[in-house]
Amino acid sequence: MNLSRKDFLRGAAITGLGATAVIGTPAIAQGRRELKMASAWVKNFPGFGTAAERLARRITAMTDGRLSVKVFAAGELVPPFEVFDAVSTGTADLYHGVEFWWQGKSKAFNFFTTTPFGLTPTEMKSWVYYGGGQELWDELAANYNVKSFLVGNPGVQMGGWFRKEINSLDDFRGITMRMGGFGGEVIRRVGATPASIPGTEVYQALQSGAIDATEWVGPWNDMAKGFHQIAKFYYYPGWHEPSSNVSAGFNRDVWNDLSAADRAIITAACRAENDEMQAEFHANNSSALGTLASQHGVQLRPYSDDVLLALGQTTQKVVAEAAAEDPFTKQVHDSYMAFHAQARRVTETSEQPFARAREMVFRSA
Amino acid sequence: MNLSRKDFLRGAAITGLGATAVIGTPAIAQGRRELKMASAWVKNFPGFGTAAERLARRITAMTDGRLSVKVFAAGELVPPFEVFDAVSTGTADLYHGVEFWWQGKSKAFNFFTTTPFGLTPTEMKSWVYYGGGQELWDELAANYNVKSFLVGNPGVQMGGWFRKEINSLDDFRGITMRMGGFGGEVIRRVGATPASIPGTEVYQALQSGAIDATEWVGPWNDMAKGFHQIAKFYYYPGWHEPSSNVSAGFNRDVWNDLSAADRAIITAACRAENDEMQAEFHANNSSALGTLASQHGVQLRPYSDDVLLALGQTTQKVVAEAAAEDPFTKQVHDSYMAFHAQARRVTETSEQPFARAREMVFRSA
Repeated sequence: MNLSRKDFLRGAAITGLGATAVIGTPAIAQGRRELKMASAWVKNFPGFGTAAERLARRITAMTDGRLSVKVFAAGELVPPFEVFDAVSTGTADLYHGVEFWWQGKSKAFNFFTTTPFGLTPTEMKSWVYYGGGQELWDELAANYNVKSFLVGNPGVQMGGWFRKEINSLDDFRGITMRMGGFGGEVIRRVGATPASIPGTEVYQALQSGAIDATEWVGPWNDMAKGFHQIAKFYYYPGWHEPSSNVSAGFNRDVWNDLSAADRAIITAACRAENDEMQAEFHANNSSALGTLASQHGVQLRPYSDDVLLALGQTTQKVVAEAAAEDPFTKQVHDSYMAFHAQARRVTETSEQPFARAREMVFRSA
Repeated sequence: MNLSRKDFLRGAAITGLGATAVIGTPAIAQGRRELKMASAWVKNFPGFGTAAERLARRITAMTDGRLSVKVFAAGELVPPFEVFDAVSTGTADLYHGVEFWWQGKSKAFNFFTTTPFGLTPTEMKSWVYYGGGQELWDELAANYNVKSFLVGNPGVQMGGWFRKEINSLDDFRGITMRMGGFGGEVIRRVGATPASIPGTEVYQALQSGAIDATEWVGPWNDMAKGFHQIAKFYYYPGWHEPSSNVSAGFNRDVWNDLSAADRAIITAACRAENDEMQAEFHANNSSALGTLASQHGVQLRPYSDDVLLALGQTTQKVVAEAAAEDPFTKQVHDSYMAFHAQARRVTETSEQPFARAREMVFRSA
């Protein structure tokens, strides 16, 4: 899912309600401290907005209210794309969002969310926790007075909805597809036209034929959006966003002012969310995928190998060019790709062949 | 990895040192409480024993020592296979072990660890957290006065080490392989001889030719064990143990006596471990797999499709027979398999085809 700035500013316009009225409360009273979370999601946005709320409730419960995290949905405190700056300057204490939205500051932020044909969710946390990723992220975020953590992911996404079949790279040429970031640049280079359409307008754009295809998230969110009503072909896998990590970033002054126990609580709360959000998505995607196929006649289709190969080879060029933009981005890119080269071999001898073998067994049953 | 009772009792004999000397400390002093963790692992056993220690440190740090978790390695308090009973009766406050070791009490425990061709780690946590698994687990464990949580997994395991190539099911016939539980019964039915060999004796048994093959865990633990020195062929995937969840079980009286905040802390600590242990394994497996292939001349081989198909079809019979043993086991089996039927379709349209496509792209580079 690529959400555009316009998308969020619109959400802000609708839901924004004079945030100043809410902010005035004293942050510290009787040993208790309120932490203001600037969420980049509209209230109750399934999977994402609800994960922000769950993280807040968890920290509050674990500290018995000593730290009380109050969630401000997109636009309530600041517009969603400004949550990072709000935390950086201290207007908010933490944000819940997605790092590649800050790529205007440094392309390096992309690597802490996802890249096309990049690390899977398991590989990503492995790189961040045990492969040097967190140290690089800390170095990057410290430039903005922020300390960030992984707090979940929706799993490997789906490839998107198409109004016509994509049997070869030729069919990919000439179509207009909603896709942003690295993925959008990749499809442009193989002959499609990437379109930047606000989430609130995607359904209408696909219905009217203004676009021929769109990516969104996965079965759970996609079914809620209703894409199956206007596009028949649902392609996989989501080559463009294999992990899509969500992150929580704390103001460093606030972070440093916390006790060691509270830092341990927050670190564990973030790890717990990184564990739980993916579980919630897999369960909800499971039932939604069944419904889409059995009740809505959706045609599930794999991208063909020639399409995937072309997209993958182009991705390598796009990502390498981004890495060349500045020395720190190159350093992050090199660390990420070195880990990728090793870690994918484990995936290719464990999760991947296991799932393939299991599919063979149960399809033959 | 299947560790035998004998294995652990031996460990206990070596490291057991009159546990009573250690237990006498008052559990509660000045609002602080010591929780005794009976770990089923020998001290510093990579990935498993170290995860038990990390969980203990995390809970202690998060509560600023209000709950201080003291780890007793295998045999220090009770022998490893008795950790469940020790918690049940209150000799220990919590254990760190693997549920399928208690299958003598009920075959239903197997489903909370792993089954051949069963749920992957992501699917498993999804079933436990959002598919009704935890509720069934609570019902089962409550019979023994225990409350259990997922606290990590080593990822999908490797298939094992062989002294000769396995090109077809015929090559599988007649070999003796160390494998226990459901997996052992499956290989028996396809013509191999399953052997129950203590972990401490596996290397020698494989070296002497007493066995022709053995499963263990994955590259990290397997390389430490030195199997590459005596067996050349390293097969994948680990069809017999796709998730191998580790669990922490609390004495229910202790659990119920904790404050809501402390229960929230422990729940989050367990989720955090469920997130982190897999990350640590993937990182260490990544470097070990590279070393095994590049420095030790290990031949990485996929099981052939006819072998996997035969193992998979036999697994379905073995698991169904176990489910028929009692009504509660059948209830757990039916919940697990219903979730499996839905959840694997998501894996087959996301993680699995993504990893396959990525492999194609990077092998062509």
